[in-house]
Amino acid sequence: MPRTSSTQIQPIEWHDGVLHIIDQTLLPAEARYIETSDYRAVAAAIRRLAVRGAPLIGIAAAYGVTLAARGGDSMTAAAEELAATRPTAVNLRWAIERVLAATGGDAALVEAEAIRMHQEQIASDVRSGELGAALIADGATVLTHCNTGSLATGGIGSALGVVKTAYWQGKRISVLVDETRPLLQGARLTAWELAREGIPHELIVDSAAAGLIARGRVQAIVVGADRIAANGDAANKVGTYGLALAAQAHGVPFYVVAPASTIDARTARGSDIVIEERDGDEVTSFASARTAPDGTAARNPAFDVTPAHLITAIISERGVLRAPYPRTIAAMTQPAAAAR
Amino acid sequence: MPRTSSTQIQPIEWHDGVLHIIDQTLLPAEARYIETSDYRAVAAAIRRLAVRGAPLIGIAAAYGVTLAARGGDSMTAAAEELAATRPTAVNLRWAIERVLAATGGDAALVEAEAIRMHQEQIASDVRSGELGAALIADGATVLTHCNTGSLATGGIGSALGVVKTAYWQGKRISVLVDETRPLLQGARLTAWELAREGIPHELIVDSAAAGLIARGRVQAIVVGADRIAANGDAANKVGTYGLALAAQAHGVPFYVVAPASTIDARTARGSDIVIEERDGDEVTSFASARTAPDGTAARNPAFDVTPAHLITAIISERGVLRAPYPRTIAAMTQPAAAAR
Repeated sequence: MPRTSSTQIQPIEWHDGVLHIIDQTLLPAEARYIETSDYRAVAAAIRRLAVRGAPLIGIAAAYGVTLAARGGDSMTAAAEELAATRPTAVNLRWAIERVLAATGGDAALVEAEAIRMHQEQIASDVRSGELGAALIADGATVLTHCNTGSLATGGIGSALGVVKTAYWQGKRISVLVDETRPLLQGARLTAWELAREGIPHELIVDSAAAGLIARGRVQAIVVGADRIAANGDAANKVGTYGLALAAQAHGVPFYVVAPASTIDARTARGSDIVIEERDGDEVTSFASARTAPDGTAARNPAFDVTPAHLITAIISERGVLRAPYPRTIAAMTQPAAAAR
Repeated sequence: MPRTSSTQIQPIEWHDGVLHIIDQTLLPAEARYIETSDYRAVAAAIRRLAVRGAPLIGIAAAYGVTLAARGGDSMTAAAEELAATRPTAVNLRWAIERVLAATGGDAALVEAEAIRMHQEQIASDVRSGELGAALIADGATVLTHCNTGSLATGGIGSALGVVKTAYWQGKRISVLVDETRPLLQGARLTAWELAREGIPHELIVDSAAAGLIARGRVQAIVVGADRIAANGDAANKVGTYGLALAAQAHGVPFYVVAPASTIDARTARGSDIVIEERDGDEVTSFASARTAPDGTAARNPAFDVTPAHLITAIISERGVLRAPYPRTIAAMTQPAAAAR
């Protein structure tokens, strides 16, 4: 039985000192790659969401530091610029700190570390996919939000990796895909990945989820995370929290799937997480067409926080964590401290 | 103190046997009126949401029956065609039954009854606006969904009429406007009405509401309804139910504002309400631009049902109802039966 599809998407590739990044803002209409040897272009691509997804921007940033080292730029300056591109995803800072710490600034070592991190993410997705798929029943309709697939991690995906793995295991599942306003990562990216894999799916507007959950149409919800606090609160794409409330109201399991690097022991609780506020134009316009009257202001938080008590399980490559999260997270991230 | 603004919007006008309907699909870019003496054009306008809003489609249908009577068409056939345009809003059938019952099919009487209904709705909005505004605190941020303003009722609006009245009373309020996918009635219509009135407002994507409620940014939620069952369950634009769940989780009052004609004593509970499923193209496309990959299927329920236990109060021109709704609704709609 195949573990991964033949149509595997490669959103980021590293060839001989050149980084190739698929421009996700153009999908699904066009699969065009940005090719660059300049870390500033990587930072720009992260800022405008040409590359997005918490694990993938970590990998992109690691390659960005590598490009700086190879190009003779200051690795410290590059690291700072890359880390400042987006504030919420902790994987970004984690990845940058890892390549710097592991290498002492040696350019050759940085490249090897970035490649290792990329490969580890691919393996991590396979493992969390298996752990999560065990929780998905045959015949289930699974609801997901945003894009947590190959385009978000570089592997098979986190939450969408669970969906793919369950499907590859022969489970007859179908997927309800939230379109995920304002930037439509669900409609543009998740629907595209699922179509390539042949996995049955239907698109819905984000606000339709609660009513469909109430009518018994959803058996599980799987989402990713951009940062998980030490107490289990999880920041993820705006709209996730509302799904968790609806899941709780109707007894539907709500799973957060993310690499262990998403867990930030330095963040005590969700209210400590900085929520990125993006430009209101993303809300008042669609593509180049303005949807709201001229002059309409918009508020555009990119993320929200789902409190730990609404999360059925947190699934990473290191296991399936359940409440009480402060204890299970500490046991996983600081085994010595937890044992004391 | 002015009770209504000088910029009052007239979405529907009746002049000498010609019905003028503003084409809401073109707003806010263009305010163009459909002018017709053919009831079939009225039915078509309701079907494609050129005219929408539960009270307003009732008024439009009443004028549609009048057009049939004046044009020598069968009033019964016209009534059937108009009633079949949309299944969820009960005001539509109520209005058609009222003009038929009140007139015995006399064309001259039908016209007078349609005009009376239209005028009554304007008065009804003023009254429910006053009753609701009393519940809105000075300084409050009020969140609303879809469009429940002049464009939905022909008066000042139901839920948005409450907002306008509170503002005209001198309360310093601001409004968070859900854009309301898929057809963006919030972004296109509500933002347009609020801008004309000069009421401070910000647009958000629908899924941002729950996170903002959690962060204490919302003091009240006001929504309309397309049908309220005898037990208080309320069908309204898709996305309303999720707002009600978030309101409950954070102790924010959740008000449903609708004319008494929205209450359907013949519908026992929310699960008995037919939920209109509209074309998936509304989800997979935006304006003429396709957002999802070719071939992506979509599910597009136009409404959801908010259970009575999540509703703080139901506000109509006849008073402010609170739980237990089966009793308070019966007392209002069937006073004799309730007294027995």
